[in-house]
Amino acid sequence: MLQWLRQYRREQLPGDVSAGLVVAMMMIPQGMAYALVAGLPPVVGIYASIAPPLIYALFGSSMTQSVGPMAIVSLMTGAVIAPLAAAGSGLYTVLAAQLALISGLVLLVCGALRLGFLANFFSRPVMSGFTVGAALVIALDQIDTLFGGAWRSPHWPSAILGLASLAALVLARQYLAALLRRCGLRPLLADILSKLAPMLVVIIATVLMADSRYGATGIHMIGAVPAGLPRLNLATSAAHWGALLQPGLLIGFIIFLISMSAAQTLALKRNEKLVSNHELIGLGAANLASALSGGFPVTGSMSRSAVNFAAGANTPLASVITAVLLALALVAPTGWLAWLPLPTLAATIIVAVLGMLDLSTLTTAWRYDRADALAWLATGAGVLALGVQAGVVVGVAMSMGTLIWRASRPNIAVLGRIAGSEHYRDIARYPAATDPAMLLLRIDANLFFGNVETVSERIEDELRGHATARDLVLVLSAVNAIDTTALFALSELNQNLKRRAIGLHLAEVKGPVLDRLKHSELLATLNGRLFLSTAIACDYLQPTVA
Amino acid sequence: MLQWLRQYRREQLPGDVSAGLVVAMMMIPQGMAYALVAGLPPVVGIYASIAPPLIYALFGSSMTQSVGPMAIVSLMTGAVIAPLAAAGSGLYTVLAAQLALISGLVLLVCGALRLGFLANFFSRPVMSGFTVGAALVIALDQIDTLFGGAWRSPHWPSAILGLASLAALVLARQYLAALLRRCGLRPLLADILSKLAPMLVVIIATVLMADSRYGATGIHMIGAVPAGLPRLNLATSAAHWGALLQPGLLIGFIIFLISMSAAQTLALKRNEKLVSNHELIGLGAANLASALSGGFPVTGSMSRSAVNFAAGANTPLASVITAVLLALALVAPTGWLAWLPLPTLAATIIVAVLGMLDLSTLTTAWRYDRADALAWLATGAGVLALGVQAGVVVGVAMSMGTLIWRASRPNIAVLGRIAGSEHYRDIARYPAATDPAMLLLRIDANLFFGNVETVSERIEDELRGHATARDLVLVLSAVNAIDTTALFALSELNQNLKRRAIGLHLAEVKGPVLDRLKHSELLATLNGRLFLSTAIACDYLQPTVA
Repeated sequence: MLQWLRQYRREQLPGDVSAGLVVAMMMIPQGMAYALVAGLPPVVGIYASIAPPLIYALFGSSMTQSVGPMAIVSLMTGAVIAPLAAAGSGLYTVLAAQLALISGLVLLVCGALRLGFLANFFSRPVMSGFTVGAALVIALDQIDTLFGGAWRSPHWPSAILGLASLAALVLARQYLAALLRRCGLRPLLADILSKLAPMLVVIIATVLMADSRYGATGIHMIGAVPAGLPRLNLATSAAHWGALLQPGLLIGFIIFLISMSAAQTLALKRNEKLVSNHELIGLGAANLASALSGGFPVTGSMSRSAVNFAAGANTPLASVITAVLLALALVAPTGWLAWLPLPTLAATIIVAVLGMLDLSTLTTAWRYDRADALAWLATGAGVLALGVQAGVVVGVAMSMGTLIWRASRPNIAVLGRIAGSEHYRDIARYPAATDPAMLLLRIDANLFFGNVETVSERIEDELRGHATARDLVLVLSAVNAIDTTALFALSELNQNLKRRAIGLHLAEVKGPVLDRLKHSELLATLNGRLFLSTAIACDYLQPTVA
Repeated sequence: MLQWLRQYRREQLPGDVSAGLVVAMMMIPQGMAYALVAGLPPVVGIYASIAPPLIYALFGSSMTQSVGPMAIVSLMTGAVIAPLAAAGSGLYTVLAAQLALISGLVLLVCGALRLGFLANFFSRPVMSGFTVGAALVIALDQIDTLFGGAWRSPHWPSAILGLASLAALVLARQYLAALLRRCGLRPLLADILSKLAPMLVVIIATVLMADSRYGATGIHMIGAVPAGLPRLNLATSAAHWGALLQPGLLIGFIIFLISMSAAQTLALKRNEKLVSNHELIGLGAANLASALSGGFPVTGSMSRSAVNFAAGANTPLASVITAVLLALALVAPTGWLAWLPLPTLAATIIVAVLGMLDLSTLTTAWRYDRADALAWLATGAGVLALGVQAGVVVGVAMSMGTLIWRASRPNIAVLGRIAGSEHYRDIARYPAATDPAMLLLRIDANLFFGNVETVSERIEDELRGHATARDLVLVLSAVNAIDTTALFALSELNQNLKRRAIGLHLAEVKGPVLDRLKHSELLATLNGRLFLSTAIACDYLQPTVA
């Protein structure tokens, strides 16, 4: 904890200051926009950008993670709370904080129980499909705000402002960095400044709306923003604890997944070490802080953390500076924020999530492993069709489904001896000779509950096809583990073969597997022997042939 | 379909007839008892024992499976419907049929999509913990019926009858078979006849109650049973489809798991082949038949199928005979059933589920693999604390949790050369020499989303510990598969090492893994080479040393 502060070196300061400044400028429009995605007053997005990064700096393990509001987590928050409270009501805001509290507690408990391995429950294709599906949902949700009404019958002033903002942001995203570079800026600086386009567009639009000619056109604005820092606030409504518990679990899980995936990408670039259990604690504490300061669920954001990283962040001090700047912005006169037009904010949301519409994982998976590509598509479709909460469940189901499906089709090879050698190989791939009295099977998979039935059936099939076999040798050179379910199956196979007077032998059992088998009764009751190698097994069982 | 009928041999008939008769005698009290567990009128249990086995005989793949009411599925049915309809109401019965319809459709769809691999989602310890937890819940639920009231203030006539029935059944279970054998019966016959004890106890208790001296004591009886066969009945209530959909999915899943586990045990004993996709179709059709004939969700029962098997069932004709006998029982005068006392029925339920309280899987797992034992305990506790539906979810989570947890701790060995040989071995286990300019890592696990982060971290750790290494050789002799997530991680490792001017080489890549990698860009962009063996890699990379 705070190791970075004790080891702080003076030369780290310039990078941290510039990153803190840049991220603060990015955070103001983004925080307000993501609060809107969650159905909350925009100022709540600023609140959620102050205490959480401060607390994460104390407990988190990533040096460059920027913790705060994030599009997908905001979408999930809105989906959970919208059915429970009227939009804009005080209850809505209280429930959002309560959801952050529950998610934070879930994350802390998981951290205390050292359940960091939970980050491994989503495959990358599933995470990618989930992200793309959620990004589409978020973008589609903003269409009405962008047009000031249904897109078929728009409120024209709103639509013109919204589309103009959108065009400006898209153009800035595509060309601003290149333009600034051509103006002589260093490439890195040009890239970073181009990330401030949303702030610039928001300021221009706000200034325009402050002009009464435009202000009177009926374009919706965010309205009065309460001045001052967030107050410690945790009015709870006991009736809703039950309703928020399960969504809080799901959101806690997604907070962890999103943050880990961002932090890992960045840690890899600097060969930094990330401790997933510390990350759970850091995120849990950050969400508690968000709940206590009137915020809503927060997480590390890939896009914002990448800017933080690129702008030179060396330590969490960058995030501390961001938080301080945002707090100052709230203490400063905030009256001007009232004129910020909603269509422009909608445009910043749409452009922000467009960056998440990345299909490269899908195309790679399509070429490399069709099952992973189908899992991507099913998860994306699940989010679009069933909503983002059910999408998490679909995602876990698809990750586990591809895993078990693949595991249920293990490679099992019948081995034969390569003539004139001591080598035994798959007879389907090599011209190898088999012995009618002996069946050699090599199982190329760990034996566990997911494949134990298929393996048992394949063994029976092969025994049926080798009716003269008196001995079955299982070659376990590729088996790294045998779980309890598989242990029972092997014991049943052993009993069964004993009744049929067929010997069951094990060859090339790996050290760790053998160590574990010694804690079971299988070896003591084995209707056959253990052999160090396949060749030794064959020589022993078929001395005349060998 | 019906292959068994086309190939029917005359000598199979006596076994099928005797098994059909025995199972019918067993099914009458059991069907009524399990209907009570589901909160349904006892006669519904008989209905559910007629059409389903007939239809399963057409579509199922097991020769000896006895399909009908089953304790755990009945418990789940009751848990789903009790909050939706008043006990004893017409709606309750309609919803039970509707649940069977939904579960049946789920099973048929899964069968059509060939999702038989879903049976592999529960590990054996988890299935065992789930079964024990559910058995305890069922037994505890019957205590009030057994005592005719709360056990602290029982209705004494009921309690005496209930406890006497219980004592008789427990004694019969323990000693009846041995007693009959001592009377000169063949052991098999003695065992089978002892299974008819529940029927005998039920008859005796019913006859007692028919005597007005006992009938007037206030012991609850099942009351008038409608005579005649079930009628085609599917009054649905659209309002409840939504509420029943998700429970229907869970119950369909459990129906399949329970039936497969029973059928597999029996198929193993006769070396018969079971096709899990046919089993899905057979069970789906059986549940549709149950729904259409006024029944409730059914499945293959281990205890009943074992009796069917032991009593000599050779083909599904045994089940057909059982069904016909039960249909005849309903056509015959059923007035006497009205006197059947509920405490006795409760005693048969308690004794039936006592047989499911098997702790041997737990004790084996405790010795062999602590994680599996904890999964057993967590699942059992989940069923007891959260209910049987949530218990299914806990079970899947624990199965998957142990799987991912184990996968997240793969064995990774640093290899060194055994002096004077071409062999490379784990330096932690063998006195093998390493080269400071080269790091050899053997990964003893398939690379997939569940372990890819740990593997990446371990590789980074080892590189930190071997700061002089200019080449990293990954020995993939134990890697049977690399999924899309791991492909991305390897590509990122490759980019990362390229920046640090460290070569990345792959050795001993298996044929199927290599075939798949050729569909990716990893090999083309690899910052190093592919080697057939570790020795070749070392000779090439360190020619002077070798």
